[in-house]
Amino acid sequence: MNQQPISRFPVPDIAGMPEDIRTRILAVQEKSGFVPNVFLVLARRPDEFRAFFAYHDALMDKPGNLTKAEREMIVVATSNANQCQYCVVAHGAILRIRAKNPLIADQVAINYRKADITSRQKAMLDFAMRVAFESYAVGDADMEALNAHGFSEEDVWDIAAIAAFFGMSNRLANVTSMRPNDEFYTMGRG
Amino acid sequence: MNQQPISRFPVPDIAGMPEDIRTRILAVQEKSGFVPNVFLVLARRPDEFRAFFAYHDALMDKPGNLTKAEREMIVVATSNANQCQYCVVAHGAILRIRAKNPLIADQVAINYRKADITSRQKAMLDFAMRVAFESYAVGDADMEALNAHGFSEEDVWDIAAIAAFFGMSNRLANVTSMRPNDEFYTMGRG
Amino acid sequence: MNQQPISRFPVPDIAGMPEDIRTRILAVQEKSGFVPNVFLVLARRPDEFRAFFAYHDALMDKPGNLTKAEREMIVVATSNANQCQYCVVAHGAILRIRAKNPLIADQVAINYRKADITSRQKAMLDFAMRVAFESYAVGDADMEALNAHGFSEEDVWDIAAIAAFFGMSNRLANVTSMRPNDEFYTMGRG
Amino acid sequence: MNQQPISRFPVPDIAGMPEDIRTRILAVQEKSGFVPNVFLVLARRPDEFRAFFAYHDALMDKPGNLTKAEREMIVVATSNANQCQYCVVAHGAILRIRAKNPLIADQVAINYRKADITSRQKAMLDFAMRVAFESYAVGDADMEALNAHGFSEEDVWDIAAIAAFFGMSNRLANVTSMRPNDEFYTMGRG
Amino acid sequence: MNQQPISRFPVPDIAGMPEDIRTRILAVQEKSGFVPNVFLVLARRPDEFRAFFAYHDALMDKPGNLTKAEREMIVVATSNANQCQYCVVAHGAILRIRAKNPLIADQVAINYRKADITSRQKAMLDFAMRVAFESYAVGDADMEALNAHGFSEEDVWDIAAIAAFFGMSNRLANVTSMRPNDEFYTMGRG
Amino acid sequence: MNQQPISRFPVPDIAGMPEDIRTRILAVQEKSGFVPNVFLVLARRPDEFRAFFAYHDALMDKPGNLTKAEREMIVVATSNANQCQYCVVAHGAILRIRAKNPLIADQVAINYRKADITSRQKAMLDFAMRVAFESYAVGDADMEALNAHGFSEEDVWDIAAIAAFFGMSNRLANVTSMRPNDEFYTMGRG
Repeated sequence: MNQQPISRFPVPDIAGMPEDIRTRILAVQEKSGFVPNVFLVLARRPDEFRAFFAYHDALMDKPGNLTKAEREMIVVATSNANQCQYCVVAHGAILRIRAKNPLIADQVAINYRKADITSRQKAMLDFAMRVAFESYAVGDADMEALNAHGFSEEDVWDIAAIAAFFGMSNRLANVTSMRPNDEFYTMGRG
Repeated sequence: MNQQPISRFPVPDIAGMPEDIRTRILAVQEKSGFVPNVFLVLARRPDEFRAFFAYHDALMDKPGNLTKAEREMIVVATSNANQCQYCVVAHGAILRIRAKNPLIADQVAINYRKADITSRQKAMLDFAMRVAFESYAVGDADMEALNAHGFSEEDVWDIAAIAAFFGMSNRLANVTSMRPNDEFYTMGRG
Repeated sequence: MNQQPISRFPVPDIAGMPEDIRTRILAVQEKSGFVPNVFLVLARRPDEFRAFFAYHDALMDKPGNLTKAEREMIVVATSNANQCQYCVVAHGAILRIRAKNPLIADQVAINYRKADITSRQKAMLDFAMRVAFESYAVGDADMEALNAHGFSEEDVWDIAAIAAFFGMSNRLANVTSMRPNDEFYTMGRG
Repeated sequence: MNQQPISRFPVPDIAGMPEDIRTRILAVQEKSGFVPNVFLVLARRPDEFRAFFAYHDALMDKPGNLTKAEREMIVVATSNANQCQYCVVAHGAILRIRAKNPLIADQVAINYRKADITSRQKAMLDFAMRVAFESYAVGDADMEALNAHGFSEEDVWDIAAIAAFFGMSNRLANVTSMRPNDEFYTMGRG
Repeated sequence: MNQQPISRFPVPDIAGMPEDIRTRILAVQEKSGFVPNVFLVLARRPDEFRAFFAYHDALMDKPGNLTKAEREMIVVATSNANQCQYCVVAHGAILRIRAKNPLIADQVAINYRKADITSRQKAMLDFAMRVAFESYAVGDADMEALNAHGFSEEDVWDIAAIAAFFGMSNRLANVTSMRPNDEFYTMGRG
Repeated sequence: MNQQPISRFPVPDIAGMPEDIRTRILAVQEKSGFVPNVFLVLARRPDEFRAFFAYHDALMDKPGNLTKAEREMIVVATSNANQCQYCVVAHGAILRIRAKNPLIADQVAINYRKADITSRQKAMLDFAMRVAFESYAVGDADMEALNAHGFSEEDVWDIAAIAAFFGMSNRLANVTSMRPNDEFYTMGRG
């Protein structure tokens, strides 16, 4: 067997983690039935863990015009472009569940231009990819293209911030060789 | 619904196809329970269809040192790099089945360097990616790296030819917007 | 002298080749006065040889709106971008002959945007290059640009299939270090 | 005059900000003599502001083997590669001050390989650039190169996390067109 | 200390240089108060030195519609994209002085799209970057974009020639590891 | 017919050119039997013309360890990578003549790694390509690789300067759409 470990770095025991982190992890475990590896891998740096998940929640769980499925589309499309195994597999699972669509995650990951999504969603992902790969060139023309699809100023910020945050997450997962939990691969496949 | 058609081009009826092509398609349908869309999309050009599948079979069904799962790994890794939705989804399914491993296709597609495969298989995929993206620079150093992992001259040809053939296939699928059959997404997920 | 061999791999004797392959090679030799090396290099894999040339003929020798010179332009432009010595030199010779123009092959190889060709032919080559290098992004806008120059749906398929097939051929020639025959360099130079 | 505004998005008044954010901003103003624009631009999203600066402080202000100047080198080198005006100008100022070297920020920004830094610091920046641009390929060879320069496992995490965090920051600053304060340009130039 | 030498190659003594070169260098020293290292580094090849500065003067000191500050903007923007430390630092100083603007050089170097310059100047720099990185694709559309901003045929030549000349200069400075004089870093910062 | 003009810009009459430029052009015409278009295209800017050819002669006609054929190899390999039609066609002709080899120019232009040249010459071209495309990363390892093939410090400068100078020339020829004279295509083909 060639099974990879969940991280290139040592992973702490849940029992020895700071109270707040352990509590969050146990709550996730209770809800999901397993502990997603990102919690275990990042827990060795408690302050970074807290900031990471606070940021994550501020972007992914807040109210807003983008649906939760659309936010996950941004994660999945940009994470495959960054070749981040953990993020595509884990957020692909969440996307399938949020969108109630067993095909969408693979479609969006591999080539969102061919996915069963709206042209508005393709424009959203065009912009997310631009933020991920050529943010230096973002300008008024991007804003106009987004406005033409009905995205507000708040929506633009949301798309950009999600693409930027998961660009960080992709890099952390790639450097740590973060392994996706086996459970994610089949979730939401109907 | 935003479901995409199976091809940007008109697709012929099976009934009206040349005898040999119809026979092949019906045999695949009998065996798989459905007709993979690549057969329908390419059938509008019968001579090209015949050559395409003759080439495919010469590379993928012949005896050789590379296992059938390894050949599919080459397809899956290079096809995701080329952002070919059809090839990753369809050959991902075949890879899961050939390797009897429900996780391997997503791992190899997204980032084969992190997949649960041997270092010999990673060297095989390093070379396949080099053929796909910088074949002009392939030289003696590549041969030595492959030989160090026990690959023979015949194996090198096989890896290169599979990467090259599916590079063509990826481009055809991308231009035709070839849609993967829904059945592929869940095959072999255990 | 530093003259390179015609292939990195062993090359079979014509005498020992399967009957159909030997016959084809001798016919080419009769017609051209020499055996282009691609026949010798690929003959060590008879099934792949047969499929390769069946595909080649289906694309390059069939009737259609694209002239034979235009098909060769596609080969020459994409092959230089892929840095394939065999394909540029051999198909450059064929292009000069088909177009009855001793300058065109070098012009198209180096920078087709500056070649003595029509703007319709430049649009054809723009699309061929896009198929060769970013087929994942091909979409409706490409179709519209081609239609604006009078290309039909069949023509689009032809351009794409030729670019895709020779993308495969370029990779095979690069990996085998296929050497162009000396004869090609001066053919059609007037 | 063509002076750009500090953000493409509306910027809140300090008076109307949540108490904790206003307090932090006033403390920075007291210490620095001005309010760096990043505080004002990000304050329109209080939860994201809090997470951003918590993350920033966890990486940049914590104890560790990397000096504070070295951490700023990572920011400056990767931010120029991402063409982030705010981050290069602001962190360039901090780098000059931390390193007590008026030349170092421009050197590191433009081409760190030619900067007046140690070979160990160049190895650190080689890795930071790899995290920023090809994190998918990070592997054992990178770890060995870093270990050869005496970097520990903790140091590797620090370098990667700083490069990843500022990759996010660069994208946010580029999308918002965040303007560096005039004060930064001359700080620490001696 | 890690201070780099001014060149990877030996640097001649001023006393032993040919008369015309020594005279030019002493005149620059008289005017500037120091000898910019480019003069010393290139002086080891007198004929190349003479041609280099004749070309430089023909482009940078001649009359024309582009202001001297605009010509320096071209140098600074393309040189940072080529990661040339000498050219960004030295010409950044000249740009600050010519433009009487202490902020402009850093802005233009890092991301000219966000600089405090006119949209006409941004169009000029868009074209300069295109000459620097994809001159093969320059065509009628570029001319029209420049004409729309009022640039004449002569101006187009000037922009292209300055970008091309400093592309050469960037490569020479990078290969020689040409060190910017310390004096340049603070000139014109007001 | 679609024959392109020799320049996008107006071209002066020889009769009206400054004396020294007219004399040089007439001398070339006398020797070659025709006036290479580069002389006519650049002559509209006399000072730039003089500097360009002084630089050219300083690099290409001077004594040194690199043979004249080797210097032309550098021009041909880098110019095809820059897609400069004029430089590949014109200097390809000169290379065939200097090397007394009718095949070498096409081989070096398309893929020098496969050309009938020595491994020392391939190392020379590896470095020339690095100067042309990633000069920012040139460092001690490049010097060692060149020294291992017997290149001196002077040779390194020559290779770099030729690659840099023709990088400028490629950009000028691309922007002006400089047309190669018909005569070059067949010169030296034996």
